[in-house]
Amino acid sequence: MTESKEKKPRIAGTSFSLYPMSDNFADLILNALKKVDSSKVWMKTDRVSTIVRGRIPHIFDVTQAAFLEIAKTGVHVVYSATFSVGCPGDTEGHVYMAEDDSVMNRGLIDDTKQKVSAKFALYPMGGGNYMDPIYEQIESMKSHGVEVNLTHYETMLDGPAQNIFTGLQSVLQAMEDAGSPHTVMTVTISANSPTKE
Amino acid sequence: MTESKEKKPRIAGTSFSLYPMSDNFADLILNALKKVDSSKVWMKTDRVSTIVRGRIPHIFDVTQAAFLEIAKTGVHVVYSATFSVGCPGDTEGHVYMAEDDSVMNRGLIDDTKQKVSAKFALYPMGGGNYMDPIYEQIESMKSHGVEVNLTHYETMLDGPAQNIFTGLQSVLQAMEDAGSPHTVMTVTISANSPTKE
Repeated sequence: MTESKEKKPRIAGTSFSLYPMSDNFADLILNALKKVDSSKVWMKTDRVSTIVRGRIPHIFDVTQAAFLEIAKTGVHVVYSATFSVGCPGDTEGHVYMAEDDSVMNRGLIDDTKQKVSAKFALYPMGGGNYMDPIYEQIESMKSHGVEVNLTHYETMLDGPAQNIFTGLQSVLQAMEDAGSPHTVMTVTISANSPTKE
Repeated sequence: MTESKEKKPRIAGTSFSLYPMSDNFADLILNALKKVDSSKVWMKTDRVSTIVRGRIPHIFDVTQAAFLEIAKTGVHVVYSATFSVGCPGDTEGHVYMAEDDSVMNRGLIDDTKQKVSAKFALYPMGGGNYMDPIYEQIESMKSHGVEVNLTHYETMLDGPAQNIFTGLQSVLQAMEDAGSPHTVMTVTISANSPTKE
C-alpha cells in the first residue's frame, strides 16, 4: 500500500454519498461527518453527493469512517462512491495533498466489526486491453478475506467492512502502480440490511 | 429514440437501487416494485441491488417508474444505477428481450411533475478517444430541457425527472447507434432532498 518514493502521487478523488434508510437521515449524516477528521483531504458536499479529493489512503479513510459511524447505530445504511484517478478532464484545483499517508480516523474504524455486502466495478479507461486488469483485481480481493461472487455488471463482495475497504483501496493503488492512465472504480456497500437473498 | 430496423438490439442492463431515506424503506420499495409492470424485462433483486436486463427503453421505463412511485409519497429518495451494454464478460442469459419498444409504465410516469437533482458519468470502454463522445453527450443533455453543470467526476443535472430520464436514455441509445463496443453509464438521481447547496 506504500506509494513509490520516486513517483509523486496523483490527485485521487471520489464522488460519494451515504444513504441512511431512516427518518433521521439528515442528523445521522451530519453527526458522522462531524466526528470524522477530514483535515487531510479537500471535501465539499453539493445537492447530490460529496466530493473528496487528496491522496488515496485519506479518501478511503475519511469516507470509510463516516460510513461506519452511521453503521454503528444499527440503521440500514448504504455507501455509494465513484473513485477516479487521472481523468483527462480533471483540474489541478479543489484538492489537498497531505504530506504523508498516515491516516487520521483509525480510531473510529478499528472499534467496529461491521459485516457488509458490497458490489464494485473497475473501469480502466483509454486502453483496448482493459478486461485483463479487471479480472486480476477481482481475483486480488480474495486475498483480503473477502467472499467474492460474480454477478452482472459488478462483482459481489461479502465480509468485514475493514477487509472490503482495504481490498478496494489496494485495487485503486495497484492500478496507479501499474501506470493506468485513467482509472474509475464504482463501489456500493450496504450495512445492516434486512434483505436476505 | 427508435432503434434501427436493420440492427438487432443488444442486451442492455442495469444494476440499480432505490434508497428511500425513511424508517419505512422496505415497504416503500416493495410497494413500488409491485405497482410497476416489469413484464418486458428480466429482473432480479439480490442483497445489494436489482439487476434489470432487456431492451434500452424498457430498462429505463421500469426503473424510472419504480423511482417515481416512491418520490410521489414525498419521501427523500435516491435512484442509483449503473447501465451497461456490450461488456465482453457478459453472458447471453438472464434476459428478456421484448418484441417491441412500446413501454408498459407510461401511466405511472406521466402523472408526476417531480423535480430532481442528478449526476451522471459516461464511460465508453476500450478506445483511446473516449473523451470526445463524453463531451458530446454532456452537451446533448441540454436539448432535453435539463440544466447541466460541470463538477468533479460526474456531470450535474437539474430539472423534471422525465426530461432527465429521457435524456439519459438518449445518451445510451446514441452510444449504441454510434457503434460503441462497450458503454457504461452511472446515474444518481435525488428527489425531495432537504439539502440546498
